[in-house]
Amino acid sequence: MQFLRNAWYVAAWASELGRGAMVHRRLLDEPVLLFRDSCGKPSALFDRCPHRLAPLHLGKVVGDTVQCGYHGLQFDGNGTCVHNPHGAVPRAAQVHAFPLAERHGMLWIWMGDPARADPATIADFGFQDRERSFVGEGYLHVRSSYVLEIDNIMDLSHTEFLHADTLGSSGISRGEYRAERDGDTVWSRRLTRAEVMTDELSRAMGVEPGTAVDRWLHVRWTAPANMALFAGAVASGRPSGEGRETPTAHCFTPETASTSHYWFSICFPRAMGEIGERMAREQIAYLRAPFESEDLPMLEAQQNSIGDVDLLSLKPVLLAGDAGAVYARRVLSRLLGLEAQAT
Amino acid sequence: MQFLRNAWYVAAWASELGRGAMVHRRLLDEPVLLFRDSCGKPSALFDRCPHRLAPLHLGKVVGDTVQCGYHGLQFDGNGTCVHNPHGAVPRAAQVHAFPLAERHGMLWIWMGDPARADPATIADFGFQDRERSFVGEGYLHVRSSYVLEIDNIMDLSHTEFLHADTLGSSGISRGEYRAERDGDTVWSRRLTRAEVMTDELSRAMGVEPGTAVDRWLHVRWTAPANMALFAGAVASGRPSGEGRETPTAHCFTPETASTSHYWFSICFPRAMGEIGERMAREQIAYLRAPFESEDLPMLEAQQNSIGDVDLLSLKPVLLAGDAGAVYARRVLSRLLGLEAQAT
Amino acid sequence: MQFLRNAWYVAAWASELGRGAMVHRRLLDEPVLLFRDSCGKPSALFDRCPHRLAPLHLGKVVGDTVQCGYHGLQFDGNGTCVHNPHGAVPRAAQVHAFPLAERHGMLWIWMGDPARADPATIADFGFQDRERSFVGEGYLHVRSSYVLEIDNIMDLSHTEFLHADTLGSSGISRGEYRAERDGDTVWSRRLTRAEVMTDELSRAMGVEPGTAVDRWLHVRWTAPANMALFAGAVASGRPSGEGRETPTAHCFTPETASTSHYWFSICFPRAMGEIGERMAREQIAYLRAPFESEDLPMLEAQQNSIGDVDLLSLKPVLLAGDAGAVYARRVLSRLLGLEAQAT
Repeated sequence: MQFLRNAWYVAAWASELGRGAMVHRRLLDEPVLLFRDSCGKPSALFDRCPHRLAPLHLGKVVGDTVQCGYHGLQFDGNGTCVHNPHGAVPRAAQVHAFPLAERHGMLWIWMGDPARADPATIADFGFQDRERSFVGEGYLHVRSSYVLEIDNIMDLSHTEFLHADTLGSSGISRGEYRAERDGDTVWSRRLTRAEVMTDELSRAMGVEPGTAVDRWLHVRWTAPANMALFAGAVASGRPSGEGRETPTAHCFTPETASTSHYWFSICFPRAMGEIGERMAREQIAYLRAPFESEDLPMLEAQQNSIGDVDLLSLKPVLLAGDAGAVYARRVLSRLLGLEAQAT
Repeated sequence: MQFLRNAWYVAAWASELGRGAMVHRRLLDEPVLLFRDSCGKPSALFDRCPHRLAPLHLGKVVGDTVQCGYHGLQFDGNGTCVHNPHGAVPRAAQVHAFPLAERHGMLWIWMGDPARADPATIADFGFQDRERSFVGEGYLHVRSSYVLEIDNIMDLSHTEFLHADTLGSSGISRGEYRAERDGDTVWSRRLTRAEVMTDELSRAMGVEPGTAVDRWLHVRWTAPANMALFAGAVASGRPSGEGRETPTAHCFTPETASTSHYWFSICFPRAMGEIGERMAREQIAYLRAPFESEDLPMLEAQQNSIGDVDLLSLKPVLLAGDAGAVYARRVLSRLLGLEAQAT
Repeated sequence: MQFLRNAWYVAAWASELGRGAMVHRRLLDEPVLLFRDSCGKPSALFDRCPHRLAPLHLGKVVGDTVQCGYHGLQFDGNGTCVHNPHGAVPRAAQVHAFPLAERHGMLWIWMGDPARADPATIADFGFQDRERSFVGEGYLHVRSSYVLEIDNIMDLSHTEFLHADTLGSSGISRGEYRAERDGDTVWSRRLTRAEVMTDELSRAMGVEPGTAVDRWLHVRWTAPANMALFAGAVASGRPSGEGRETPTAHCFTPETASTSHYWFSICFPRAMGEIGERMAREQIAYLRAPFESEDLPMLEAQQNSIGDVDLLSLKPVLLAGDAGAVYARRVLSRLLGLEAQAT
């Protein structure tokens, strides 16, 4: 499977990587080691010592370097070998370092041409900035292609069936749906009217449980698979400006062709004070349950059903709600094509 | 692996599928969903929603339809989408439905050309009909090709060694053996004389434990792998007509190239009354033990030993008792060849 | 992966195979059955019955034969079928028998041309002979290629990092290293000066704990992967002749391309009496811990990191301490090339 390489992917929550700590993950089917030096600077290295090919994550952070656990070579954040305990440092002792940026509480990795890595092109997840928001952070490992996750979030009509008792209601399929393209950004906009949500969801949205509401669910996709969902509800018939809009992030990074990393968040304004802090904590736990026990099994089963082939080659029947997912797949396909052409 | 497609295979015991229930299985390396509507009519669908390719078995039976668990499309027993909660039903929203017949207490599936599916060609397992018999029903999952199971049942000389303490005796290898071909049906007939069976087996056969008996084991094979074993015993030297013949079924359906489904039964005449009912219950449990703990490990080891290649390509040494299995393989091979030719 | 076939490999400790016992293992990616007859003669057969391809190890030893557990054919130590309970023995009923030699407490197998199997060419592990030594015997299953194990033992500079708290010390990387070639034998010689070893290691080497010592570690490699390590230590500055040299064996046999069998030993002179016997027992347990919990995870990770390709194709950076491993790989490569040419 070809992955988009000249793009920013989430590699970790910034909070996962303390000073002097290491985290290792497979990203775009390559082994990656993240570590943070004593000054707080994070780095990303190809997780393989150039000497005997041992994974560097079996070693440890020594000063501002990573020391290989097998024969002790030490590499700095640029991947340069700065110490060989057995003699002179061979000139070729160099590990590939990936551009890494810390932004919006996340570590973003660039696995393409380093010369093209511009942090200014990282998608806007400013609602996760700590000065503005209390952020509930989540992570799940997904046994499906990241593209099936794009489809999943772009078409939230599934909440009525897959999440009937948690995030959905019978009003979803009667709602209005619209997909929009704005350059390489795609929006899926869904509006349901006079819907009664579960009590828990009502509380999360700041609505009296049991009230019939108008609910909007606006999903923004940017390549490769970084998505923001802006959800809000007001008593049915009231202007949306009266309601609170809650942003959640849904960022996917391929692990392999058929497995993915899923970083998600829910954010409440700092202005809410203690209540906002508690809601961030409680709501991230609440969201995790349906994501883990309802979405993940479905996505894994869907992945197994599709197998190694591209979903579109199986000529799926498309419904109106698939428009956003289809737009996103088209943008992704075009970008992948451009990249393939360039190499 | 090529499977015979224009043939009836067992898909389930009829008793597995209650009204409004679903059973899903991989058959001939395809995902199949069985469900029974509120009138009792069973259907078999390709277990994959044509919309997003999710397995239908993750949904539920709603009325006389199966509702996909992901976005709620509903399909009837013909595989036709009869409801799309999000709008009009797309013309292409159709799932393949396999011909399915309920006969002899079993559900039989036809995975080839539907136009050729004639239930009259289902092999005769009339001894399982409830009006005639008490039936003990069994099922095992087998980690070997169904063809190795054909070999296994066609050559019961293995009972002396593999089932020494359960179904066999040292008299087996001294017995007489004969294979017969009758069109596409193959018989393996085995007769042992003056053999002393285990006590449990004697009781099952209606013989006083400890008695030297003449035992016959006649196996009937019909393609692809539906087998009936007619076994009986009488005090040695007495005419076989004095003994009771007990029929057992051994039906195999490929799951994948190297795994199979195994449906087996043992039947006693209704005329036996309560005793027959109890024996059906007890004897199916008794049979299950050696099948599960003696045959299955051997077949799995044999499968691993052979690997992906055809057994005959390894030039096995053949013994006299292999004649029936060889005949059956030849018929199967000819039928597979005809089918390959036609496509 | 191509394996050297005309070579002696360790198949088992002789002590594993009692009279009338069977041991089965995958060696050079082939199933092998070892059994010992009632006179004590060990044999090695291809572990597959020529009749139905069932593994012979599911059967049992009957007299001086192995009886197949499926249909009862019996094979002697030459692989000849000597009994068919169902009739005459077919001429083709023959299992391949591998030359097998019992020497130095080990069973050595030859999986190449039997005509070339000369036990005189078995590498000298005479220090394991019971008349001379008390022998602690160990076995581990390794999830890496046997070649990575050659690299591991040939370059003991890793002990400073991978075995920092068990077998190493910070003196290792300051030591002297020299690799020597003697025909097809390769030596890796390492000498460290004024090093303080762990207490346990000091006791094993017959040195007062806490003493600064000069330690030598001389590794002898013979193809394919039979290695002897002669280790000793004396108070720093004293002549090595004053110290005790302890031999350990490290013999590797490929199981598959990416997994191996590892037989290791530590030997103490019989002249030491009870103390030597106890040390053999205690030290083999002591060695096992770092081999199992430090080497094995590193080798498995290294194997996964390298994958199916040859390590050298990944252009590893070589350090001075790799010389012995590189020499050994060259000899192995030349021998494999000769064998490929011959076939």
